[in-house]
Formats: sequence, C-alpha cells, structure tokens
Amino acid sequence: MAEKLEMVKNKQVLLKDYVSGSPKESDFIIATDKKISLEVPESSDNGVLLKNLYLSCDPYMSLLMPKPAYSTFEDGSSHYTPGSPINGYAVSKVLDSKHPKFKKGDLVWGITGWEEYSLIAAPDSLFKIEHIDIPLSHYTGLLGMPGMTAYVGFYEVCKPKKGEKVFISAAAGAVGQLVGQFAKLAGCYVVGSAGSKAKIDLLKNKFGFDDAFNYKEEQDLDAALKRYFPEGIDIYFENVGGKTLDATLLNMKVHSRIAVCGMISQYNLDKPEGIHNLASVLFKRIRMEGFAVYEYYHLYPKFLDLVLPYIRENKITYVEDIAEGLENGPAALVGLFSGRNVGKQVLVVARE
Amino acid sequence: MAEKLEMVKNKQVLLKDYVSGSPKESDFIIATDKKISLEVPESSDNGVLLKNLYLSCDPYMSLLMPKPAYSTFEDGSSHYTPGSPINGYAVSKVLDSKHPKFKKGDLVWGITGWEEYSLIAAPDSLFKIEHIDIPLSHYTGLLGMPGMTAYVGFYEVCKPKKGEKVFISAAAGAVGQLVGQFAKLAGCYVVGSAGSKAKIDLLKNKFGFDDAFNYKEEQDLDAALKRYFPEGIDIYFENVGGKTLDATLLNMKVHSRIAVCGMISQYNLDKPEGIHNLASVLFKRIRMEGFAVYEYYHLYPKFLDLVLPYIRENKITYVEDIAEGLENGPAALVGLFSGRNVGKQVLVVARE
Repeated sequence: MAEKLEMVKNKQVLLKDYVSGSPKESDFIIATDKKISLEVPESSDNGVLLKNLYLSCDPYMSLLMPKPAYSTFEDGSSHYTPGSPINGYAVSKVLDSKHPKFKKGDLVWGITGWEEYSLIAAPDSLFKIEHIDIPLSHYTGLLGMPGMTAYVGFYEVCKPKKGEKVFISAAAGAVGQLVGQFAKLAGCYVVGSAGSKAKIDLLKNKFGFDDAFNYKEEQDLDAALKRYFPEGIDIYFENVGGKTLDATLLNMKVHSRIAVCGMISQYNLDKPEGIHNLASVLFKRIRMEGFAVYEYYHLYPKFLDLVLPYIRENKITYVEDIAEGLENGPAALVGLFSGRNVGKQVLVVARE
Repeated sequence: MAEKLEMVKNKQVLLKDYVSGSPKESDFIIATDKKISLEVPESSDNGVLLKNLYLSCDPYMSLLMPKPAYSTFEDGSSHYTPGSPINGYAVSKVLDSKHPKFKKGDLVWGITGWEEYSLIAAPDSLFKIEHIDIPLSHYTGLLGMPGMTAYVGFYEVCKPKKGEKVFISAAAGAVGQLVGQFAKLAGCYVVGSAGSKAKIDLLKNKFGFDDAFNYKEEQDLDAALKRYFPEGIDIYFENVGGKTLDATLLNMKVHSRIAVCGMISQYNLDKPEGIHNLASVLFKRIRMEGFAVYEYYHLYPKFLDLVLPYIRENKITYVEDIAEGLENGPAALVGLFSGRNVGKQVLVVARE
C-alpha cells in the first residue's frame, strides 16, 4: 500500500488571462490554495522537486503572455496558460531527485514555475550551480541566462575588435550592464543609453562606461548619437528597437554589426513602430543578426572560464534590483516594461 | 614643338542639376558640342582612351544624383556633377593606352563616362575582357558588375544549402534573373517577384524559377508569400525594400538569411517607408547583411570559373533590354525606376 505523501502549501503566480498590450499587475493572480508533495512521485522517472529561491524577471516573458496565435516568438519556452503559473529562469534548491545528474541539496538554475515549489519532470536543461562563492541571486543574471546572453551577443555575434566603438541600449539592464563591461575589458569605447538619471550614474560611475545618456532627455536621438560617436558606431547591442534603432542605423559605420538581443519597446505594441533607415544596412554593409541564448548554452563552461576570474578579481560588477516575495512578483515583472528596475530585476521567494 | 592632336566630336549625357525624387528624362542633357582627342595626352602617365560600346543602366546610379549632402551612399563611385557627364559601368574598346596593362584594341569593362569616348586617367580598376566568345554586351550584366553581384550576394553572403527555399524580388532584373538560376543550379526551390506579366513569364519559362508572382496583382504580399512558401523562406535576396521586405520578414524561417543587394523602391523617396516587422530578425534569428560588390572583385576569376562553363553549356541564360544610342540613354536609365525594362537594361553607343 502506497504511503500517503505529506502535502505543503504552494503559493503561485498565475496568468489571469491572455494579455494584450503591456502586462499589468491585474493580469496576474496570487494563488494560495494549491498544495504540493515535496517528494518526486513514484510515477516520475527523472523528475526533480525544487524549492525556488530567486526568480528572474526578463523582458521575453511578455512575449509568452498574448494569445499564442498572435505571437511570432519561437523558442524552447512554451506560452503561458491562463489559470496556470507562469514560468521563467530561477535559482532553486533540489529537495528530491530521481534524476542521476541531481541530488538533494544541489543548487540549480534554469526554467521553473513562479511558485514556491516546482516539480520538474524533465530537468535535463537545468544547470547545476558549482561555484557558490558567488551570490546565488547572480545565477538569475550575471552567471545565468542574461550573462550568457551578453557573452554570446557580444563575443559570438558582434566579434569585437580592440578600439571599436560600441553603443548599448537599455544599458543598465540585466544584459546591457554586462555587455558594457565586456566591451571595456575588450578595449572598446562604450556608450550606453538608459531612461533615468540613476541609471546613467550607474553606467558612468559603477560600470565604467566611457559615457552614457538619458534617451528621454534627448529631443533628437540622431544628434545625441552623433555627439558621442562623431566617427560612427562599430557595434550596436540592440535591446530596445523602435526609435533608438532607427537613429542608430544612421550612425553605423561601414562593416559594422548589430546584435539583435531584444526589442523591448516593441513587444507590447499592437503595431510595431516603422523603421525608416534600413537602407543603411545596404549603404554601410551592416550585418544585423538576431540570436537566441539557448542555442549557445553549450558555451556555458567557456563563459564561466572567462567571467569567474573577472568577478573574483572585482573586474566585473553587477547590480540587481531585488523585490521580495511572490506577492510582489507581478509588480516587479510589469515594472520591466516601464523601465522601473535599476539593474537586473530579481524576485526573492526564499533565501535558502 | 608639340604636334597638334586631331579632335573628334564626343556626344555626352550630362546631369542637368542635382535630382530630387525619381530621376526624369529632363534631368539630363544630351551635349554634342564637346570634342576630344583620340590619343592619350603626353601629360598622362597611365591613361587610356576608350571608345565606349555598351553602357550599363543600374539602379545605384540614382543614388549619385541628389545633392551629396543628402545621400548616405558610400562607395568608390563619386557623385555626379551638374554640367558634367554621368558615369557608370560599360564595355569599351581601348583606342590608345599609356598603361602597361592595356594596349590598343583591348576590350575592357568598368566605370567610364556616358559619352562616346572617355579618357580614363587611372584605369587600374578596369577589367580586361578575355573571353570574346560571349556577347560583349554581357559584360555589362551577366559577366560584369551585376553578375558578380548575384554571385557574391548568393554564394558569399547567403551561403545556400541544397533544398533551401529562396525568394528573390526584382527577380527579372539584371541581378535577380541570375540569382534565380544560381539557386536552381544549387538545388534550391526558387520563387521570384516582379512587376509585369512579361517578367513573370520570363521567370517561369526562361529562367526556370519554380514559381513567380506579380507583386502589383497581390492585395496582400504576406498572403502571397505564404502561398509560395508555406514552410517559410531560408534565403531572401533583397533588391527592392519597402513593403516587400516588410512582408518577407514575416515569412522568414529560423536561421534564415537576407542578402541586402538593393532597395530600389526606396532610393528616390523623401522619406523611406517604415518597416514594421524587424522583430522577426530577433524571433527567427535572421542574419541580414548588406554587401557591396566592389569589395569582392578579387573573386572575379573564381566567378568566371563557375559561370563560363554554365554559359557555354547553355545552363545559364541572360535577357537584356537593349536601347540604342546615347540620345536614348536618359529614357533607358529613368525606366529602371518604373520597372519598364525587361531584363538587364543596356544602352548601345557603338557595336565595335
């Protein structure tokens, strides 16, 4: 006779209904009525039971909220389902495991539910956290998906050369702050744009950007870019799309590169803004390339080899914007789309 | 005492004034009052004196007509000057030479003036024509700049694989007709768009495209592309820009490529049309790349090795639209921008 499993309460953040336009806090429900066993069920072959510690708030998540038919987003993530918990990258602790790669007590990062505990039926894509001298929350950012995104986009897609001029939009965000530091370490000149004085201060005084500007204070983005890049831009790390992209296209140098990492300003519009200056791609022989970090995860060990020494020697720093508690998850997530976060937006569910 | 050189009349096509908007016939003047000596002057170190035979009408030429300050076009070509002859690619015969590479009687292709005779002071960039079993006029197209453009854009930029799905806009033009034939020879599925029934017939019945459509008869370009590419496009060879590009972006496959060869629909607009679907570059991880043929001319011998056997075995064909006489040059050139030409637009100045 099967032993009766002990069940615990499992708080969750559910999608209320498919979202149109920018997500609002009211698009989510905090559910407190669900229970979960803290053991992997007998019926599971390879499952792990996770206690979720740090949840990552990432812009791509808004692409999983509209009705699937309206979205052109294709990746490993599945669309969110109304009435079910949303999911995203997180740092979690293994409470129970039937998977040979993981054992109780392991720390992992990867995709999990927005809830206190998650049963992951196929945990192969989770990364085991081996270096615990680094703050655990950094595995949602610096040493997680956004860190790998910065690494792949800058080194693999842009192929930087010493002395090149680099422009980064959303430069104080989870990815941008790291791209800027990589670019400085590679001997490039780096300017970032962001949307508040606090962010500009961070870029200039904490992350070591050569310069930075608040795009909201610029009447003419083309003129702003000409001020910082009188000879043009070699590398544009694109996080925002829209007007910033259009102005940047006018300032790209011959044989320059645009790594398209994100277009956060366009994700939640009914009709994306028109880009008028694409002829620059022709006239300047620009290579513009989209990429998806999950196609490069085989490079994660190489990334760690590069970045861990930099972190331990204090040559790279990382700023997080910490929200506390699942209840505050919707607000933290929604804030990404108005640029409210300063640095990487993390949500703490539990600290251990 | 210097011998007095014999002078002959030299008919020319002059730019009347800087052009705004689409070029019109009235933007040019046929000048018949100039004279030229048919010998390279004593003072010239390396000059050649050319008799121009076939002039090439190419879309990029309209980019050299506006006031230079308004143009973002950067290449080896210089802007046209009001009151002076325009220039472009041509096939010419050497009448006299002080350059060690060329001798009297040689046939060459390269950039020369729109006039009966041209003195070229620095002729190093001219190509000597070695294979005269091919019609000479083809060195303005199939075996000249447009042919190299098709070769470079398709093979070097797009890197095609057998079985891939290829879409070509302006497919019956000087470049497009050849890209389509290259793609078929590479084992690809090829569909072209063009603007008249005559062109569509050529694509399907002469150039061997798998299919073709008249973009002017399509209410919904996105729907048209979905009809021909239900599983999406691997390679888009971009010649036109604007609405066609926008619709094509929605139909690109993951890891597809866009070679940006031209954007003829946008060259003469005050403000280029807005492109709304660039997020596809991100979501589908598209590589979009502009290129300029003159950066690849070192590959010309490799191109000839590929294409000459195909021509001699009748595996490649090429259609020209022939206009006769410098007087008809402005009309032939202007016709490019309304799509009047069927095939490569050539202007005959003299046949030998």
